[in-house]
Amino acid sequence: MAFPVRACALVGRFADPRVAESVGALLPGLKARCAQVLVIDDGDVPDWLNGDVVPVPEDQIAQRADIVIAIGGDGTLLYAARLVARHGVPLLGINRGRLGFLTDVMPQNMVVAIDAALDGKLATEERTLLRATVRTADGKVTESLALNDVVLQKAASGRMLDFEVFVNGRYVNSHAGDGIVIASATGSTAYALSCGGPIVEPHLDVLVLAPICPHTLSDRPVVVSARSVVDIKLIERFETQAQVVCDGVVLGELEPEDSLQVQAAKERITLLHPADHDYYRLLRSKLQWGRGGRDLSR
Amino acid sequence: MAFPVRACALVGRFADPRVAESVGALLPGLKARCAQVLVIDDGDVPDWLNGDVVPVPEDQIAQRADIVIAIGGDGTLLYAARLVARHGVPLLGINRGRLGFLTDVMPQNMVVAIDAALDGKLATEERTLLRATVRTADGKVTESLALNDVVLQKAASGRMLDFEVFVNGRYVNSHAGDGIVIASATGSTAYALSCGGPIVEPHLDVLVLAPICPHTLSDRPVVVSARSVVDIKLIERFETQAQVVCDGVVLGELEPEDSLQVQAAKERITLLHPADHDYYRLLRSKLQWGRGGRDLSR
Amino acid sequence: MAFPVRACALVGRFADPRVAESVGALLPGLKARCAQVLVIDDGDVPDWLNGDVVPVPEDQIAQRADIVIAIGGDGTLLYAARLVARHGVPLLGINRGRLGFLTDVMPQNMVVAIDAALDGKLATEERTLLRATVRTADGKVTESLALNDVVLQKAASGRMLDFEVFVNGRYVNSHAGDGIVIASATGSTAYALSCGGPIVEPHLDVLVLAPICPHTLSDRPVVVSARSVVDIKLIERFETQAQVVCDGVVLGELEPEDSLQVQAAKERITLLHPADHDYYRLLRSKLQWGRGGRDLSR
Amino acid sequence: MAFPVRACALVGRFADPRVAESVGALLPGLKARCAQVLVIDDGDVPDWLNGDVVPVPEDQIAQRADIVIAIGGDGTLLYAARLVARHGVPLLGINRGRLGFLTDVMPQNMVVAIDAALDGKLATEERTLLRATVRTADGKVTESLALNDVVLQKAASGRMLDFEVFVNGRYVNSHAGDGIVIASATGSTAYALSCGGPIVEPHLDVLVLAPICPHTLSDRPVVVSARSVVDIKLIERFETQAQVVCDGVVLGELEPEDSLQVQAAKERITLLHPADHDYYRLLRSKLQWGRGGRDLSR
Repeated sequence: MAFPVRACALVGRFADPRVAESVGALLPGLKARCAQVLVIDDGDVPDWLNGDVVPVPEDQIAQRADIVIAIGGDGTLLYAARLVARHGVPLLGINRGRLGFLTDVMPQNMVVAIDAALDGKLATEERTLLRATVRTADGKVTESLALNDVVLQKAASGRMLDFEVFVNGRYVNSHAGDGIVIASATGSTAYALSCGGPIVEPHLDVLVLAPICPHTLSDRPVVVSARSVVDIKLIERFETQAQVVCDGVVLGELEPEDSLQVQAAKERITLLHPADHDYYRLLRSKLQWGRGGRDLSR
Repeated sequence: MAFPVRACALVGRFADPRVAESVGALLPGLKARCAQVLVIDDGDVPDWLNGDVVPVPEDQIAQRADIVIAIGGDGTLLYAARLVARHGVPLLGINRGRLGFLTDVMPQNMVVAIDAALDGKLATEERTLLRATVRTADGKVTESLALNDVVLQKAASGRMLDFEVFVNGRYVNSHAGDGIVIASATGSTAYALSCGGPIVEPHLDVLVLAPICPHTLSDRPVVVSARSVVDIKLIERFETQAQVVCDGVVLGELEPEDSLQVQAAKERITLLHPADHDYYRLLRSKLQWGRGGRDLSR
Repeated sequence: MAFPVRACALVGRFADPRVAESVGALLPGLKARCAQVLVIDDGDVPDWLNGDVVPVPEDQIAQRADIVIAIGGDGTLLYAARLVARHGVPLLGINRGRLGFLTDVMPQNMVVAIDAALDGKLATEERTLLRATVRTADGKVTESLALNDVVLQKAASGRMLDFEVFVNGRYVNSHAGDGIVIASATGSTAYALSCGGPIVEPHLDVLVLAPICPHTLSDRPVVVSARSVVDIKLIERFETQAQVVCDGVVLGELEPEDSLQVQAAKERITLLHPADHDYYRLLRSKLQWGRGGRDLSR
Repeated sequence: MAFPVRACALVGRFADPRVAESVGALLPGLKARCAQVLVIDDGDVPDWLNGDVVPVPEDQIAQRADIVIAIGGDGTLLYAARLVARHGVPLLGINRGRLGFLTDVMPQNMVVAIDAALDGKLATEERTLLRATVRTADGKVTESLALNDVVLQKAASGRMLDFEVFVNGRYVNSHAGDGIVIASATGSTAYALSCGGPIVEPHLDVLVLAPICPHTLSDRPVVVSARSVVDIKLIERFETQAQVVCDGVVLGELEPEDSLQVQAAKERITLLHPADHDYYRLLRSKLQWGRGGRDLSR
């Protein structure tokens, strides 16, 4: 992060009253400390921000900001992560009341956390990004980065998919089912967890390959090195329709002749954490561990 | 339930301060309405109950009481259920603060609920009991009733078990693993749920057969009719040691030559429920459904 | 089944060489015993069948046939089941080599099985059908029957769904995830099994409600009475797109204002089984129970 | 491995006819190439081996052998691994017919594989070993190494355990259930897999913490760095009895005042693999991936 911080960017759905409230509370302090407070010029900048913020095109945010503050849920931070991925700008996530895995600053602590961030006093943590590459039969290449996961999933027809997975060119398995999640360690607690995948400490250099509702009951999640190249080949099948989704955003359709490749990107994300950040405390809170649940008299 | 109620029985661990507090609060009302308040004469009746209650031997409780009030967790109610199983005495479960699947009257509602029970105004619900029968090679027969589940599990050596399951004399499967839970619908939310079994509406006339940590990944829980006879045969194996457990109480060891049979008992249990009893509300509370958990931004 | 059998119908993908081979082998016998061998006039009747079969419109098959023989996989039988559902015509399923849960006659046994069927000597088994009803906000009603399952699932955008489930008008749970499978006992070994649901003996009068990749980890499959009315209400959410699928066929989109109702249909299906039909043997074969898998030395 | 190989050791249950057959087939070649063929002097060396082998005490095998050949299942190799752990002697596993995760040489290939091993031509692979340390309240320390897993599990009474897990001194979670498996990457396909853990590529430097039948449904497997120190503290509870098991062998009881610590050992195991060794092929074979199973017509 460049010091002193000249420009910070605020990313969030300002139409959400809780987000607006947080932005309102933060603005005076940010204006006092930063030469510019940037927001994305998406045509939805609310009137009450006029004069206080500088709207800039989405693709210039990362070049012009020294720090990006995402206010909202983890979805907002995932969106911000894509903006800054190629530029090394650090990200701070403020949640709107409910703790997120990525937006781990509570509203009541946000002023202190942002001050510490602007002073360069927050702990930084690098996280692996995934790069998804779709190559079509006629040579077209589409790419996207993802912080949580790249997902191959059945689309419109709702028909099961058949596909083969290769790791570093070596054949792993043929899957039949609703698709597969390739998650970073960061994303292990997102979609992959709903698919039966394990929780992975976010600093570990591994990927989780979690099949979605697999037809074969022994088709279980596999943990591979994050230095692996994962290739997925769709098998032609009656009425198959498949799509590739990166962090919840559709990258495109996948045809049986196309190929999907997923690997760790050269780019990495820098997250800023509050001083008392504790991954396991976050887990306990998010997964409601230890809060009783069923009576112990089984 | 015989009317008017002449004798009620209190069952619970009176040494637990929360249980004692509830008993203290209930005693005046119970004494006013019942000729006798019975407790089990287990040598542990606390002094402060002297004069207010009549200690009777454990095996006479069900004969002498018109209603049994279990105060504690579901474990206390399971114990009380075994006492009354052969006598048709209705059971009311008061929990100590944390809602149980079986002890579903909250402390703040217990006075009203017990009054309603003594007036015969509470809803009654019959629940299936399981009967476990162990027959040894030399002809010895041991039996037990269970409200939640009969469990075959590995014992001291910790070695995996091999066993075969038959339903109505028909071979189902050979299992290798830590054992199997045969649960009533009532018990589906107890141990069987931890083994991957489904939640079953308690009034359904079915059993759940849930293998415990099965070796074969496709060895999944099976739901069968509660009119089935389930036979389990242990296969001889190096250092195998197995035990049969009914509602958490060890019935005995099972040797490879012995047989374990589980079926619905002729006896059934009558539970009394508070007026606003709602099974799905109980489920939502116990399983923390809908209380957020992970952020929705996956 | 009307006797003597005057008309039988053959249903299958005749373009599949294995299906064609079976049909070729069966035709002489069928022509000898039935006045008519019907096929669906879908424009795809192959030339080599000309003269031997009578093509009739799809919607007349069930009225004109005394028995329907489905040749293929379980998908073919599910399709045939929808054709005959309202007409009580018995169904016999011949598989193409790999045993199906529904097509349980092996090719090598098909001649004997069909002879026995035409003699009225096969065991018949009634199976529950589900009826799915979608009611849109503007009063349009769409209905479909299903033998295996009715599925609410996310559609094109791939965004998670939020929805509420009610059983007999009583609120059960709010779900967030990829959708939910409402399976008959028959369908418990199809999609619901991939979603973590239990195996249910097919004659049991129950439904399985199995959430698909639920966000909340305690959101587990629930078994309810087949006499229940299940109502599902989609909750409005950013970019939500949902569809209803019956036995793998899309019934339509579901909008947040629409409602989906699922219950047992009045109609039932009659399946014909080979003489040695054994559900548990079928299970062992399909789920590869007992065929070794991992070495037992864990 | 020291060259030329002077002494090889054979480890297995020679009373098993399939093992004896393999040993008989291997002996001439081994005698021709090694000065000594060692076996463990456990009082069970069969007569037919007299003269051909040199019985040595169990604790001298690793010092005297240049290579250990384990013949049997993975259990036999786990036993051999403990013998050689502190001595760096390479291990080759020959299975008796059914492929093991660790005994990956098929009988038909064993002569070729052993020749290649003695020529130093087999691929070697180092695997992490776990060290389990139990410290009792009165200061007694018991230790064991394990290749697959260290397990804390309920013992005789069959009562659920309550325990806390710490990673590098940081509190992770309080668990209630049947226990926990701490598995190496190697052991991820053993007991941990039956507990819902992921498959982990064996070369990855991670551990899997997989709770056994946890009471709380969100209590899911966690993947941590293999450089972590895992501490487990049992919580006092009515009738709790717990034991610690390393690779299937009971290390001892654990009392509530005791502590269990698990971490990667300094010692590592060297496995020898046949020339065409392919981990994913092994997985496909052991987990029966792609061998059909349920019909695809769901």
